[in-house]
Amino acid sequence: MDLSESSVLEFHRGGKVALKMPHPVRTVEDLCLAYTPGVGKAVLHLDKKPEDAFEYTAKGKTVAVISDGTAILGLGDRGPTAAIPVMEGKCVLFKSFAGVEAWPVVLDNCRQGGAKTGKTDPQRVIDASVAVAPMYGGINLEDIAAPACFEIEDKLQEILDIPVFHDDQWGTAVITLAAVRNYAEVVGKPFSSLQVAMNGAGAAGMRIREMLVEAGVKQVISCDSKGVIYKGRPDLSGRKLLAAEDTPCRTLQEAVRGADVFIGVSVAGALKKEWVQTMAPYPAIFAMANPDPEIRPEEVAEAMAGKPYVMATGRSDFPNQINNVLCFPFLFRGALDVKARKITMGMKLAAADALAAAARVPADEATKALYAGEDLVFGPKYILPKAFDRRLRALVAPAVAEAAVKEGVARVEAFDKAAYTAALEAEVAAEA
Amino acid sequence: MDLSESSVLEFHRGGKVALKMPHPVRTVEDLCLAYTPGVGKAVLHLDKKPEDAFEYTAKGKTVAVISDGTAILGLGDRGPTAAIPVMEGKCVLFKSFAGVEAWPVVLDNCRQGGAKTGKTDPQRVIDASVAVAPMYGGINLEDIAAPACFEIEDKLQEILDIPVFHDDQWGTAVITLAAVRNYAEVVGKPFSSLQVAMNGAGAAGMRIREMLVEAGVKQVISCDSKGVIYKGRPDLSGRKLLAAEDTPCRTLQEAVRGADVFIGVSVAGALKKEWVQTMAPYPAIFAMANPDPEIRPEEVAEAMAGKPYVMATGRSDFPNQINNVLCFPFLFRGALDVKARKITMGMKLAAADALAAAARVPADEATKALYAGEDLVFGPKYILPKAFDRRLRALVAPAVAEAAVKEGVARVEAFDKAAYTAALEAEVAAEA
Repeated sequence: MDLSESSVLEFHRGGKVALKMPHPVRTVEDLCLAYTPGVGKAVLHLDKKPEDAFEYTAKGKTVAVISDGTAILGLGDRGPTAAIPVMEGKCVLFKSFAGVEAWPVVLDNCRQGGAKTGKTDPQRVIDASVAVAPMYGGINLEDIAAPACFEIEDKLQEILDIPVFHDDQWGTAVITLAAVRNYAEVVGKPFSSLQVAMNGAGAAGMRIREMLVEAGVKQVISCDSKGVIYKGRPDLSGRKLLAAEDTPCRTLQEAVRGADVFIGVSVAGALKKEWVQTMAPYPAIFAMANPDPEIRPEEVAEAMAGKPYVMATGRSDFPNQINNVLCFPFLFRGALDVKARKITMGMKLAAADALAAAARVPADEATKALYAGEDLVFGPKYILPKAFDRRLRALVAPAVAEAAVKEGVARVEAFDKAAYTAALEAEVAAEA
Repeated sequence: MDLSESSVLEFHRGGKVALKMPHPVRTVEDLCLAYTPGVGKAVLHLDKKPEDAFEYTAKGKTVAVISDGTAILGLGDRGPTAAIPVMEGKCVLFKSFAGVEAWPVVLDNCRQGGAKTGKTDPQRVIDASVAVAPMYGGINLEDIAAPACFEIEDKLQEILDIPVFHDDQWGTAVITLAAVRNYAEVVGKPFSSLQVAMNGAGAAGMRIREMLVEAGVKQVISCDSKGVIYKGRPDLSGRKLLAAEDTPCRTLQEAVRGADVFIGVSVAGALKKEWVQTMAPYPAIFAMANPDPEIRPEEVAEAMAGKPYVMATGRSDFPNQINNVLCFPFLFRGALDVKARKITMGMKLAAADALAAAARVPADEATKALYAGEDLVFGPKYILPKAFDRRLRALVAPAVAEAAVKEGVARVEAFDKAAYTAALEAEVAAEA
């Protein structure tokens, strides 16, 4: 695969997003319907019934992918212009994987004190996002640095009555939960009894912990660069205070000892080979630092010396890729299709469960053909579905939509899960 | 033509804009190029050379259509959500007529004092527009009430280094100038000696006056609801002060007497039949109030009693439609294609001249077929090209691009007008 700068730039020439017109304007009649004088009727209708914007504008199908470019992938703060290719890419994934329309919104002038560089001013991102929100049925926040990202997501979801979802926090959390559930299934350990050691207490780490606890895992010991986040540690504040566990462990090495699961959202090399040998039998090592994981798969293989284990990373060239594209397109698709007012924890849990369930059913022939040479049968090397598994749209989105309806955050009056699933299956088949 | 509410809403179902993917993602390789890890190379490249965003993102081809919905068509302040169909429509026209990508940006929370209703706070629109600007190669402001629209356009053009153009002000002005030029040509009067009486001193009226004066018309007497805007009128301020003429006329009736041209951007019925009879021989009546003109064509016909005249309106069901779609798509296309930093007066004048020239050449067969029954030969009933005249892209955009290069606001180093024109002609032919 040629991923040189010149190949990448050539692929990007002219950009990855453009305007598609569901109703092109070819005649005077089209012009009168799409623009003056006809469009005035649509304006007056929406003035009386603003909620009909979900039907008669692109709002109901479209997600804004919003970023200020302060935490782009593993590249740090590169600002809004350099962030465009990532946000365009995200939009393309929304559309390709789930048929969701999406548009990049990269934000300039959102730094503290109005400076050109420096830390994000959460209020500026909030103001700009609220300003542009009427056009969108949902907001996907992306690559915004912590801690600003927490305040931005919380306040936006409070102010707006459309789903707001910071993918870097929650997307990874949803998929990790699905992976942990299936790990428990593969090795035959009760999910709630799992002992989890986690390294990394940034945006993703905090949310992974929250979701695991919400789903019923009894103990998740989180570490930051200073060691275990334990109850009583004097330097804790904010979210870390909430994440503190009652444990005698003080170091990652101690936390890993006897743990069933290691989850890394930190830096390359953070997990030592010798520590892996101290984990519980048939352990899981989810080393998700990008591009280089906390420990390399061959080091784990050496450490385990033939004994069974499950390993997952963020990379596509190893088994069990924790890839956000497994979640956000389908989560938003389900939320949009019931005109959800927000993304609730219940919707995220439903997405994780649906994803986990999808991996337990053997992949279809089309997916197997795309991943020739891989054995896509549920087991230690296949605990998560593949990114291009086309079944996911009709498996995950309906679960999310159903959860939204159950939790009372949907705007639709009636919801028929079977009919909706069938419609999505037909849509996917038509695209193939 | 069925322009009932139900037909209009049916046309609008699902919205008029969606995402088109120039590079769909179908394989793992596509995914690695469009998103992680490949996209990181594009990010790093743009971090070093931000101006390359014009090449490697959609920025260089894409216009933001920005509105707060405070002055929608003839419908007044209906807010951002009700404005969506108009902005979507505008985007569709950009694409259909000139191959320009465009995206609606409707702005909430931009009223004075942060209220839900009330007058526009210019600073809030400016802040939101600056925030979203990195994604776009140009900004088309739309349906923003005066006087906020003046400050917004001026300040945005000062802050940003991409073209900013308020179509309600300038689009009408460009086309009106083209119409006045061709009126002079048809009737054989020297352009600079024309005497113009204008009713309406809002956003469009002020800019029409400016452009006529800039183009060399010696006297334009403007009226507002209180009568003539004359030098020394005690209640004048701001832009109206600049528009004051040294004239003994005090009323529209007096201003119209002996005038060659009447221009109305005011209200239905503002021009009386008897006043038309006092105009200079072979006069022009441009009655552009929407949907009902300042005087109806049949009233003018009666007043003129068989004597020659030229009439234009904003409507598609009368000859000589002053339709903004004749200008904004091509003006932006030319500006984008040379990566212009702004829209200058020279570029607007070039657009007007190119439009006027286009009408002097008989329309092509395709246009004649679309407007069957109309005589598209230069003369009193055909002083402006038709909206669906496909020649316009290759006639107007190169004139604008050339003006941008001449005025030093283009970012391109070399510009070959003939080659560019040929490329646009080929593009139009390929779309047909």
